[in-house]
Amino acid sequence: MAALPRHPFEAVGDDKLREECGVFGVIGTSEAANFVALGLHALQHRGQEAGGIVTHHAEQGFNSVRRFGYIRDSFTKQSVMDQLPGDVAIGHVRYSTAGSKGNTQIRDVQPFFGEFSMGGAAIAHNGNITNADALRRELIERGSIFQSSSDSECIVHLMARSLQRDIPERMKDALRRVEGAFSVVAMTRTKLIGVRDPLGVRPLVLGKVGDGYALSSETCALDIIGAELIREIEPGEMVVISDEGVTSYFPFDRAKGRFCIFEHVYFSRPDSIIGGRSVYETRRAIGVELAREAPVDADLVIPIPDSGTPAAVGFAAESGLPFALGITRNQYMGRTFIEPTEQIRNMGVRLKLNVNRALVEGRRVILVDDSVVRGTTSRKIKEMVLDAGAAEVHFRIASPPTSWPCFYGVDTPERSKLLAATMSEEEMRLYLGVDSLRFISLDGLYRAVGEENGRNAERPQYCDACFSGDYPVRPSDMMARGFELKAAE
Amino acid sequence: MAALPRHPFEAVGDDKLREECGVFGVIGTSEAANFVALGLHALQHRGQEAGGIVTHHAEQGFNSVRRFGYIRDSFTKQSVMDQLPGDVAIGHVRYSTAGSKGNTQIRDVQPFFGEFSMGGAAIAHNGNITNADALRRELIERGSIFQSSSDSECIVHLMARSLQRDIPERMKDALRRVEGAFSVVAMTRTKLIGVRDPLGVRPLVLGKVGDGYALSSETCALDIIGAELIREIEPGEMVVISDEGVTSYFPFDRAKGRFCIFEHVYFSRPDSIIGGRSVYETRRAIGVELAREAPVDADLVIPIPDSGTPAAVGFAAESGLPFALGITRNQYMGRTFIEPTEQIRNMGVRLKLNVNRALVEGRRVILVDDSVVRGTTSRKIKEMVLDAGAAEVHFRIASPPTSWPCFYGVDTPERSKLLAATMSEEEMRLYLGVDSLRFISLDGLYRAVGEENGRNAERPQYCDACFSGDYPVRPSDMMARGFELKAAE
Amino acid sequence: MAALPRHPFEAVGDDKLREECGVFGVIGTSEAANFVALGLHALQHRGQEAGGIVTHHAEQGFNSVRRFGYIRDSFTKQSVMDQLPGDVAIGHVRYSTAGSKGNTQIRDVQPFFGEFSMGGAAIAHNGNITNADALRRELIERGSIFQSSSDSECIVHLMARSLQRDIPERMKDALRRVEGAFSVVAMTRTKLIGVRDPLGVRPLVLGKVGDGYALSSETCALDIIGAELIREIEPGEMVVISDEGVTSYFPFDRAKGRFCIFEHVYFSRPDSIIGGRSVYETRRAIGVELAREAPVDADLVIPIPDSGTPAAVGFAAESGLPFALGITRNQYMGRTFIEPTEQIRNMGVRLKLNVNRALVEGRRVILVDDSVVRGTTSRKIKEMVLDAGAAEVHFRIASPPTSWPCFYGVDTPERSKLLAATMSEEEMRLYLGVDSLRFISLDGLYRAVGEENGRNAERPQYCDACFSGDYPVRPSDMMARGFELKAAE
Amino acid sequence: MAALPRHPFEAVGDDKLREECGVFGVIGTSEAANFVALGLHALQHRGQEAGGIVTHHAEQGFNSVRRFGYIRDSFTKQSVMDQLPGDVAIGHVRYSTAGSKGNTQIRDVQPFFGEFSMGGAAIAHNGNITNADALRRELIERGSIFQSSSDSECIVHLMARSLQRDIPERMKDALRRVEGAFSVVAMTRTKLIGVRDPLGVRPLVLGKVGDGYALSSETCALDIIGAELIREIEPGEMVVISDEGVTSYFPFDRAKGRFCIFEHVYFSRPDSIIGGRSVYETRRAIGVELAREAPVDADLVIPIPDSGTPAAVGFAAESGLPFALGITRNQYMGRTFIEPTEQIRNMGVRLKLNVNRALVEGRRVILVDDSVVRGTTSRKIKEMVLDAGAAEVHFRIASPPTSWPCFYGVDTPERSKLLAATMSEEEMRLYLGVDSLRFISLDGLYRAVGEENGRNAERPQYCDACFSGDYPVRPSDMMARGFELKAAE
Repeated sequence: MAALPRHPFEAVGDDKLREECGVFGVIGTSEAANFVALGLHALQHRGQEAGGIVTHHAEQGFNSVRRFGYIRDSFTKQSVMDQLPGDVAIGHVRYSTAGSKGNTQIRDVQPFFGEFSMGGAAIAHNGNITNADALRRELIERGSIFQSSSDSECIVHLMARSLQRDIPERMKDALRRVEGAFSVVAMTRTKLIGVRDPLGVRPLVLGKVGDGYALSSETCALDIIGAELIREIEPGEMVVISDEGVTSYFPFDRAKGRFCIFEHVYFSRPDSIIGGRSVYETRRAIGVELAREAPVDADLVIPIPDSGTPAAVGFAAESGLPFALGITRNQYMGRTFIEPTEQIRNMGVRLKLNVNRALVEGRRVILVDDSVVRGTTSRKIKEMVLDAGAAEVHFRIASPPTSWPCFYGVDTPERSKLLAATMSEEEMRLYLGVDSLRFISLDGLYRAVGEENGRNAERPQYCDACFSGDYPVRPSDMMARGFELKAAE
Repeated sequence: MAALPRHPFEAVGDDKLREECGVFGVIGTSEAANFVALGLHALQHRGQEAGGIVTHHAEQGFNSVRRFGYIRDSFTKQSVMDQLPGDVAIGHVRYSTAGSKGNTQIRDVQPFFGEFSMGGAAIAHNGNITNADALRRELIERGSIFQSSSDSECIVHLMARSLQRDIPERMKDALRRVEGAFSVVAMTRTKLIGVRDPLGVRPLVLGKVGDGYALSSETCALDIIGAELIREIEPGEMVVISDEGVTSYFPFDRAKGRFCIFEHVYFSRPDSIIGGRSVYETRRAIGVELAREAPVDADLVIPIPDSGTPAAVGFAAESGLPFALGITRNQYMGRTFIEPTEQIRNMGVRLKLNVNRALVEGRRVILVDDSVVRGTTSRKIKEMVLDAGAAEVHFRIASPPTSWPCFYGVDTPERSKLLAATMSEEEMRLYLGVDSLRFISLDGLYRAVGEENGRNAERPQYCDACFSGDYPVRPSDMMARGFELKAAE
Repeated sequence: MAALPRHPFEAVGDDKLREECGVFGVIGTSEAANFVALGLHALQHRGQEAGGIVTHHAEQGFNSVRRFGYIRDSFTKQSVMDQLPGDVAIGHVRYSTAGSKGNTQIRDVQPFFGEFSMGGAAIAHNGNITNADALRRELIERGSIFQSSSDSECIVHLMARSLQRDIPERMKDALRRVEGAFSVVAMTRTKLIGVRDPLGVRPLVLGKVGDGYALSSETCALDIIGAELIREIEPGEMVVISDEGVTSYFPFDRAKGRFCIFEHVYFSRPDSIIGGRSVYETRRAIGVELAREAPVDADLVIPIPDSGTPAAVGFAAESGLPFALGITRNQYMGRTFIEPTEQIRNMGVRLKLNVNRALVEGRRVILVDDSVVRGTTSRKIKEMVLDAGAAEVHFRIASPPTSWPCFYGVDTPERSKLLAATMSEEEMRLYLGVDSLRFISLDGLYRAVGEENGRNAERPQYCDACFSGDYPVRPSDMMARGFELKAAE
Repeated sequence: MAALPRHPFEAVGDDKLREECGVFGVIGTSEAANFVALGLHALQHRGQEAGGIVTHHAEQGFNSVRRFGYIRDSFTKQSVMDQLPGDVAIGHVRYSTAGSKGNTQIRDVQPFFGEFSMGGAAIAHNGNITNADALRRELIERGSIFQSSSDSECIVHLMARSLQRDIPERMKDALRRVEGAFSVVAMTRTKLIGVRDPLGVRPLVLGKVGDGYALSSETCALDIIGAELIREIEPGEMVVISDEGVTSYFPFDRAKGRFCIFEHVYFSRPDSIIGGRSVYETRRAIGVELAREAPVDADLVIPIPDSGTPAAVGFAAESGLPFALGITRNQYMGRTFIEPTEQIRNMGVRLKLNVNRALVEGRRVILVDDSVVRGTTSRKIKEMVLDAGAAEVHFRIASPPTSWPCFYGVDTPERSKLLAATMSEEEMRLYLGVDSLRFISLDGLYRAVGEENGRNAERPQYCDACFSGDYPVRPSDMMARGFELKAAE
C-alpha cells in the first residue's frame, strides 16, 4: 500500500548488491532483547531499512516492536526496550527486496508472529523463498488471510495448517514445502530454533553467551555481546535450543552445501569469521591474487572506500606499490541530500567521497573496488580522480563480472541493468573511460577463498550464480514472471 | 537555561580533543545556501552539535535557520532550504565548548545576527575569545542585552556600539577589543568578510567558485562545491569580498603566525591541504618519523580507526612490518546506545569497534593512534585486543603527550583529567597496561610537519600549547577563574 | 503486546459510558476518502482512540491508512490523503473496548482487510461479537492466523473459509455464525455493503450524495458531506450498493428490533436524527419528563456540560425555573495534564470545568446530567459547586440508574464499579453528598423517546440492558468468563 | 524570518476579533511553574499560537521554556516542567499580532528575559505599545541589538539603559517612555511585579494562593489553582510582590480608567468576574437589552456557538421565545482540515458547525451572535440554516457594529475589511441575506455593562474605539504608517 520513498542519494551514489537481511536470536539470558538489539546493530550492514525484535516473557507473553530505520535509532530507547521483556528473543534487520519495489510497510517487517493452538511462535529469515508466489496462491485458496507481502508469512501459514502437535515439527513440515535460500531463526515460549536451507546458501552461526545461546548471521554479532563462537549451523540443519541444551535435526534430503561466495567478496563484515578464516584476510588474499593475475605499472594503489580497502592492501603488498587512502569518505553522510539544481545533482558522489588532490596529482593510480554492478559510481569516481589531476587510472575489481541477478535474498538490479550482462570487458573499460580495467577470474576468486584447485565446474563448491548464471535452486516464481535461465552450453 | 543532555556514549567511548567549530561563507552565486550547506557537511568533523546558516536576499532580506544535529539532517530538506534564499550566505557548525557545560541552547548556535542603524550583519567564528567574560561584564554595565552564552555575541555588541559608519569598519573596531584565537566569517547585505586573528591560530582559506567566492575553515569544503583554492587568509588579515572583488586589510599589529599544530595531527580532514601539502601526507610522515624514533619488534601494525590510519600506514612502510585493518569500526554507530546493565555498560567501545580476532590471535601487535587525552578509550581497546588473543600490545602515538588544555576553541578536559598532565610516560604505560608506549617527540612532530630543524624554542613556529604549556595568547578569563600558567623554567 | 498508556485525566475526570465505534462508507464519488474522513470527523464522539480508512482505486488497488488519535490530526494531511485514491471507501473510529485493557495496537484498528481468492474485501463494524472467543479458538484450531485482538477479524477469517464464490455471499455465511450487536460497513473493489444485526441494536443509516451513496452510524455525518438521508437500514438487513444501485437482503431469521436506548440518552450527537426526530429534541423531552417526575424548589437549573444541556433546557422550561450556563468547560482541554503533586492531583475536574462563582453563590442549584456511571465526577462537580457558595445542590439525572454492563460494543466498567449496582438511590445521594438526587424512571424514559405507554415489559421496544439487566443477546463469551445474568424474578 | 503558516481553516471559518495575549504570574509557592501552566491553560482563549514560562530557582537561576501551540501540549510534559524549577514564575500566551503578519518566530514568544548588571528580569505583557517603532529605531541607533520583532523587547532595552539601580525603578523608567495599552507581569529573582497602563485598557487581577500571590489577566485563572481574588490592579498601578508582601506604586500621571468594553462582549471567559459581576451575567444582560431594543416575531432563539449563548439565553428570557441549541459545534475541530476540492472548500464552516435540521425546519429563527467582523462566517451560517429549511432568519448582534480597528493588543482586520466600516446596517442585512439584522446600540451596551445612563459622550467610561473610532491613546506608529483618525465631527 503506501510507499516508503526511495532515497535519491542511494539511487545516485551507490552501486552495490545489497544483502536483504540479518537475523539474530538468543535464549537463556535476562538481557535477551538488549542482546538482540546489539547483535542487530552489528549486523546493520546486512539491512538498513527496518528492524524488528520479538521477545517472550513468562508472565507478559510475547512482545514485539518493529520499526523503520537503524537499530540505534529505535532499539536504544528505554521506552522501546521496556516493551521487550523476557529471556528468549529473535530479531531481524531488512533491506527492501527487489520484489517489494521499495514499498515496504511496517507489517512487512519481520519477525512474523503466529498464534497456533499449542501456543505462539515468531519467525524471521534471511534469504528468499523462490516458490512463494505459488504457495501464497494455494494458501489463500484454502482460506488463509495474508497480512503482508513478505514471503516469510508463507512459512507461518504452512505451520498453522500442519497437523503436527509441536512447533518444531510444524516448522519442519512447513520448510519442506518451501524452496529457496533461507537461514531461519524462530522462537516459541521456551525454545530458540535455527535452520539453514539444504544448500546452506545463507550463513548462520551458533554461539554461547553465559549460560545461554545465540544464533547469528555472522560472528561479528557474537563478538559485540561477548558470545563465543561454537560452530556454523550446517547446510540443511535445524537446531532446537531449550533449557535442556542444543538438539540437532536434518529434516531435508542431504545435499552438498553451496555457500554464497559473495559473502566473502562483499556482504559479510571484514571482522567476521567464515570457515575459520577472517573475511578481511580472505579479501586481502583476493587482492594478492588479483595483483598476480592483472599487474600494472603505476605509482599508487588506492582503495574505493570502504569495501575495497582489504583487497587494495593485498594488491599493494603483492605488487610492491605504495598504498594510500587517496579517497576520503565523509563519515557524516546520511541517506539523503537535497539536490536542487543540475549543478548540484551532478555532484552526487562528491557528497560522500572526496579525492585527496595533493596525493593523486600527476600520479598513475590503481583503484581497487570489490565489484562493479551498474558501473554508475565507478564512472563518477574515475572522473573525480581525473579532475584531481591523476595521470592514469586503472581499475582492479576484486570479483568477476556480475552478470546475473541473485534470487536468493539479495537485492540485484534486473539483468539488463548489470553492466557485465551487456558489455564485454573492453566495452566496460571504454564505458568507464579508464586506462585499464581487470576483474579477478572466477577460478582466481575460488583460489583466494581457499579452494586451491579453483572452481570444480562439475560440482561447484559455492553458489556463484551472480557470476556464472548457474542457479543451484530453480528460481520458479521468477521464471513464471519471465526470467530465462542461461542456455545450456 | 534548559540543558541538552550529553550523550552517554560520547562520554564512554571517545577520548579525543574536539574542535569547536567550522565556518563557511559564499558570495556571488544563486546557490548560496546550498553551497554553504554542502560546505558545512564537509566540515561536519569540526562540530556535530548544531549548525546554522544565514542568507541575504535582495527582496526577502536576511534569513536564518539554526538547528541541533547534523547538517544532513536539517539542511537537506526542501522546507528548510526554501527559507534561505539569496546570493550571500554564511554558516557554522559547532561542538559544545568546555565553558558551556553541554547546556547549549539553540540561541547559542551561530551565526549571530545584529541589526545596526546602517543595516544588518551576521557573524560566525571558529575559535575562542579569551577575554569574553570581561567584555561581557562591561557591555552589560552599559546596557547591552545578551541573548546567548556565546562569546561571539560580544563581537556583535561591540560592533553595535562602534561609532564607525560602515560594517567592516565597525568589525575592525570590535575585533581590536577582542583577544584570543578566531577565524571569523561575516556578511552584510552585499559583502562577505573573513578575518583571522593576529597569530592565525585557526585556519581559514579563500576559494573561487564560478563568478563568486568562498571562505572555508578547510579546503575539503571547497572541493565539495567544486571551488578552486586561491590561498590561505593570512594571520591578522581581513578580506572584504563584494561585487568589486576581494580587498585585503591588516587591522591588527603585525605578528608572526602561530598556526595550531594539532590541526595537522587530528582536527583537519586528511584530504584537506595545509601549507601546500595534504594532511594525509603529513600524518603519514608523522608515522614514518615515529617508526624511526620508536621502533619495536612486532608482527603487525594496526591503526586505531579512523584517525590513526595514515600514521599507521607510514609506520608500517618505514618499519617494514605488515599493515592490517585489525580493528573494524561499526559505521552505523549513532551517538547513543542504551546501557541498561553493568554487563552492557562495560562494553562501551565494543558498540563502535570490534577487533578482528582471526588476525590478531597470537600476534605481537603495534597499535597506532593519533593522541591520548584521558586514556580511557586506549585502555578499553587494549583490553579488546588482548581478549582477542594478541601476544603483545605496543602503543605508538602520533603526537606528544597532551598535558595542557587548549583555550583557543578546542574542547579539552580540565588539566587534572589529562593523563599526561599527571603521569610520566612509564606510569601511563602501566596505567594502560601495554607492553610498550611511545609518543612522538615535539621536535619529531615539527620535523614531520615540515620544519626540518624541529621546533624553534625561542620563537616556536606553531601554537603547541597543549603539548608545551606555552600559550601564545594570554588566557585571561581562565586565569581569572583560577587557571595557572606553567611556571617559568 | 505493547500498551498504549491510558491518559490519567480520562481516569480522573470522565465518568461516561463510551461508545466504541463509528462507521462510515461511501461509493460512487471521486472524493471517497475525503468524504469518509469528513464523515468520521463528524462521528468522532463515538471513538477517539484511533481511526482507519480503506479505499479502492481501479488501478492502484486497495489502500489503507490507520492511525491513533483524532481524524483531524492524521486524515487532513495531503501526504496521508494522497495514499487513499479511489471511488469506494470505508472508515472507522474506535474507542478502546473494555476487553482490550487499553492496550490497543495499530493492527487492532479497523477496517480489516482480507485477500480472498476472488479478490479483496475490507470490513469495519460498530458493536461487539458476543461469541468471538469461541469462534477464534475454533478458527485457530483449523489453521487461521490472527493478526489482531479484534473480534472483527473473526468475520474476515470466517469469510476466507466460506465456500461461496462471491464476497456478499461469503459475508452472509460469516455473519450467520456470529452473535452480538453489529453494524457492519464493508467494501469490495466495486461494492459498498452495510449490515445491521438481527435486533438492530447499533444504528446505521443510508444516504445519497451526488450520484453515489453513503452509509453512516449517524445522520450528522451525512450532513457534513451534504448527503441526503434516505432511510435507516433495518434490523437484520444487508444492503449491497454498486453501479447498479442498492439491493436489499435479509439474511437472518427475522426478529423485532431492539435499538439501543442509550443512543438517545448520550451516545448520538444532538443534531442527529433517529426515528424522524432530532436527538436534541428527545433529550429536551427527557428533561421535561424528569421535571414532571421529580420537581424541586430551587433557584437555578444548570447543566453539566456539555451532555446535560438539552435535558436542562427542558427541565428549566417545564419547571419554570431560570436556566444558566453556570459551569464553563475549558475548550482547550486535551487528554492529559501533568499532576505532579497531591494538591494538583485533587484538582482533576477543575482543569476541564469551572463553576461560575458569581452566578451560583447563595443559590439553590439543580444540576442536570445525562447519566451517573461510577459517580466520581459527580462528586467532584458537587464539591466545586459548594465551594463556589451554592446554598443547595440537587442532582437530576436524565437516565435511569446504570446498573448493568453493556456487552454490545460499549465500554462499561465492570458491574461492581457501577454506583447503581451497589447502592440504593438514597445511598447514592449520601455518597454524592447532595441535597436530593433523582433519576428518570425507565417508563419515563420510554415515554420521552416516544413510547406513549412506556416500556412493554413482555416485549421491550429497546435494548435497555444497562438499566434493566435484560440482555436481548446472550453474552456467551462473558458468561464463560464468569459473568452472571440477572436472576429470574 | 521563517514564517509559520496560517491555518487555512482559521481564515475560512472564524470571524472574530482576537485578543493577543494572556499573562499570569505567581510567587511564594513551590508549585510556581505548575500554577503558571494551569493559569495559562485557563487563559488559553486569549491566545493559542504560543506560550512561554520563565521561573527562577535559588540555585538553578532563571529557566525558560517557550513553545508554539497549546499549553496543554507542551507544558504538561514532565520533561518540560522539570526544566522549570523555582518559586517565582511568570507566563504568557499569545495570539499573533496584526503587525507580525503571521510570521511569528519562537524568539518572538514572551516572556522576554534580560540580564542587567544587578541581575536578571523577565517580562511579559498583554496589549500593544503604540510607539514601539519609534522607540526601536532610537535604541538601535544607540547600540541595542534586538533579537525579536516583539514590542515587548523595547521595554527590556529601555530597562537595560536606565541608570536606576534596582529593577522595579528601571521598569518605571522604561514604562514612562512607552505609550499604549499594556498589562505587564514581570519578575526578578525575588519579586513578582504587575503593572497596568494609565488607562487600564487591558485587565489584570491580584489573587492569593496559599502563602503566595498570583497575578492574572482574568479571574478564571485564579479559580483553576484555587486562588482567591483579592482585587483588580488599578489603572496606572504597579504592584511589587516579595517576601514582604504587596507594595503599590502609581508611577504615571493619574487618569480616569477606560477599560476595554469588548472584554465584556467577547474576550473574557464567561466565568470570569469583572467589576464584581460575572461576565456570563453581563452577556445575558446584553441579550435582555437587545431583546428590548430589537424584538422580532419568531419561533426560536438559537445562539451561534459558543460565544453567542449567554446573550441568546437573555434574549429568549426577555422575549418569551423558546431557546434551543439549534447549531451543534464539533468539539473535535482542530485548526486545519484538508480541502482538496471546490466542493469541500465551500463547506468551511460545516466542519465546525452543523444545524439541527429537525429543529429548524419550517421555523422562524433568531440567531444571536456576539459580533460581526468581516461577516464571512455569518453568511455561511445563514446559508446552513436556510438549507436546513428555516422559514425566516433574523440576526441579533450583542455588540454595536465593529467599524474601527483596535491598536491596543487585539488582532483586527484592516479597516477596509470590517463589514461595518463600509456598509450601512441595511447594506449589511442585504449582504448577509437575512430577513432582519439588528445590533445593540452603544448606549444599550453601556447600560447592559452597568452604566445606567449609558455612555458619557464627554468622558466615556470605557475604551470603545472599535465601535466609536474614539481612540484614548494616540496610535502613533500606525499613523506614521498611514492610518487616519476619525475626522472631528
